Amino acid sequence: MSRFWSPLVSQLEPYVPGEQPKVSNLIKLNTNENPYPPSPAALEAMQAEMGASLRLYPDPESSEIKAAVAEYYKLSPEQVFVGNGSDEVLAHAFQALINPAKPLLYPDITYSFYPVYCQLYGITPKTMPLDAEFAINPADYQTDNGGIIFPNPNAPTGLLLPLDCIKQILDANPDTVVMVDEAYIDFGGESAVSLINDYDNLLVIQTLSKSRSLAGLRVGFAMGNADLIDGLERVKNSFNSYPIDRLAIKGSVAAIKDTAWFEMTRGKIIASREKLTHELQALGFSVIPSAANFVFAHHPEHNAQQLGEKLRDNKIIVRYFNKPRISEYIRITVGTEEECEALMSNLKSLITTS
Amino acid sequence: MSRFWSPLVSQLEPYVPGEQPKVSNLIKLNTNENPYPPSPAALEAMQAEMGASLRLYPDPESSEIKAAVAEYYKLSPEQVFVGNGSDEVLAHAFQALINPAKPLLYPDITYSFYPVYCQLYGITPKTMPLDAEFAINPADYQTDNGGIIFPNPNAPTGLLLPLDCIKQILDANPDTVVMVDEAYIDFGGESAVSLINDYDNLLVIQTLSKSRSLAGLRVGFAMGNADLIDGLERVKNSFNSYPIDRLAIKGSVAAIKDTAWFEMTRGKIIASREKLTHELQALGFSVIPSAANFVFAHHPEHNAQQLGEKLRDNKIIVRYFNKPRISEYIRITVGTEEECEALMSNLKSLITTS
Repeated sequence: MSRFWSPLVSQLEPYVPGEQPKVSNLIKLNTNENPYPPSPAALEAMQAEMGASLRLYPDPESSEIKAAVAEYYKLSPEQVFVGNGSDEVLAHAFQALINPAKPLLYPDITYSFYPVYCQLYGITPKTMPLDAEFAINPADYQTDNGGIIFPNPNAPTGLLLPLDCIKQILDANPDTVVMVDEAYIDFGGESAVSLINDYDNLLVIQTLSKSRSLAGLRVGFAMGNADLIDGLERVKNSFNSYPIDRLAIKGSVAAIKDTAWFEMTRGKIIASREKLTHELQALGFSVIPSAANFVFAHHPEHNAQQLGEKLRDNKIIVRYFNKPRISEYIRITVGTEEECEALMSNLKSLITTS
Repeated sequence: MSRFWSPLVSQLEPYVPGEQPKVSNLIKLNTNENPYPPSPAALEAMQAEMGASLRLYPDPESSEIKAAVAEYYKLSPEQVFVGNGSDEVLAHAFQALINPAKPLLYPDITYSFYPVYCQLYGITPKTMPLDAEFAINPADYQTDNGGIIFPNPNAPTGLLLPLDCIKQILDANPDTVVMVDEAYIDFGGESAVSLINDYDNLLVIQTLSKSRSLAGLRVGFAMGNADLIDGLERVKNSFNSYPIDRLAIKGSVAAIKDTAWFEMTRGKIIASREKLTHELQALGFSVIPSAANFVFAHHPEHNAQQLGEKLRDNKIIVRYFNKPRISEYIRITVGTEEECEALMSNLKSLITTS
């Protein structure tokens, strides 16, 4: 606390991201990074940009990224917004597209950055409880609101909401923006992008951090009606003209275009997730069906927090959330085959010896 | 305009940055980029980071950059904040450290992003007229306020405010934050950083975009009392956990440590600026004494806007501001020796033939 802080700052409870350990001998299954390296074509494109041109500002519009996303999803570039990671995109969307005079609706169990954005922009959230199986009930989202947001697949559960249910929510809310946060969609879900030309109230947010193995580069994007995108641009251009650096522009474009690498790596992750799920179940865990690159698992006889701590002692880090309804779960990122094997071998000995 | 926009968005008048042309055969003297390439050591450090590690999130704290800045300026890392370009740093500072119940004071002629931030964060600005020589009068900043900001050297004039005057402003405002925006300080001014341990109300903002030739990388930083920095961190961590990518972290650290490259390139720019100033004066221009990497010049017999357009026809772009008091000036970035010669040769023929 400082007498120089604005009244807002004094009230903020900032987001706490998963640990980014500064030692490298850990098996890191805590922040849903991709276990495989980025597309070699993306690295090459960034190598080619590495030189004297870095003295110049980047394209403030990141037009090349917009064009690449538009081509990939058969949209127009005016339907694409680009930001410094999908967290920045979400922040701008909360400020630009939510009506703060009414509550923003989102699930009770969801990405824990949403309530932080609400504080930052003076938005009142109203949480809608997931059902007993952690599923979103579209009927819950028919109450008066200033906007709606949910991740799909949801985080940290990994559970997918089918497109039909998303349509129900969109149909019930023609006058407010429905934001579908698709950070994990490429690992097993169908994107709502296909609905953009039918619903002017739909904003779909994606990231290169997960399925394109570029968490270290910080690029996310949103897709929707050109009017929604224009609203985001207005906030972005009132905040930071040049959020995406020259290397990130080149790397992102090449990563989006390298569909072969994308398909190969996500295929491996999906296969590993299914194997991991079965092995966890064989060990007595209940595992929520995941369409993401992580699993959310609960063991009826073992305390989740302690299990996480014991794994950490063995140099494996997973994510634990000390929150209502999910405090008996651990979230495990799907690693390489070797990392999954090391995890399972550790879990087996922890569970059989304790 | 869209019915989905928040009330705020509808009111915004976004910042318009200088043109970033997509053709490369121009002499680009319009956005104050450094004409020399970044430190070779910075490029090497980024090369070394270019690989599989990009799949992992960066250090959310950018601790290595904080340590490098702290070492360079003999501060502690807790006195350093890092952002995605100094524009992002400024945005966070406006939100975190200005009391919106009172006016924010800044000069009538200044960086045109300041009024945009005010709109974004509901701050009421109060502009203080520069004197007839475009100088800041410290006595003007003794009125009740919620904060003070000015660039030093000022933009787009290039005029430096001596440290004694900054002290006067700091002394007169012990209860509000005085932000000194030092984007151009390395080209001829004395940084207010030396005052940080004496004034808990001082925030100094700098960037790697100008004197470190890294506009394309997007890294800026602020320095001040640890409480002020903590306020900035709280806003940053409520907005975007990971604003600086892995390549930018490595490149920034190496650029800050490569003091030999920094001294060599800024020395050349300062020498070119002095030569350019004299040549412009010989051509009949009045030139404001500049401590920056640009000059602000006015010709009594030639319309500034037309001069800019004619230069543009000859593939040289400079910056023109159609604003009160400065509409008869052009701002010219100091380029390489060859670029300065091309500019002068063009100006000579434009001025003698028209």
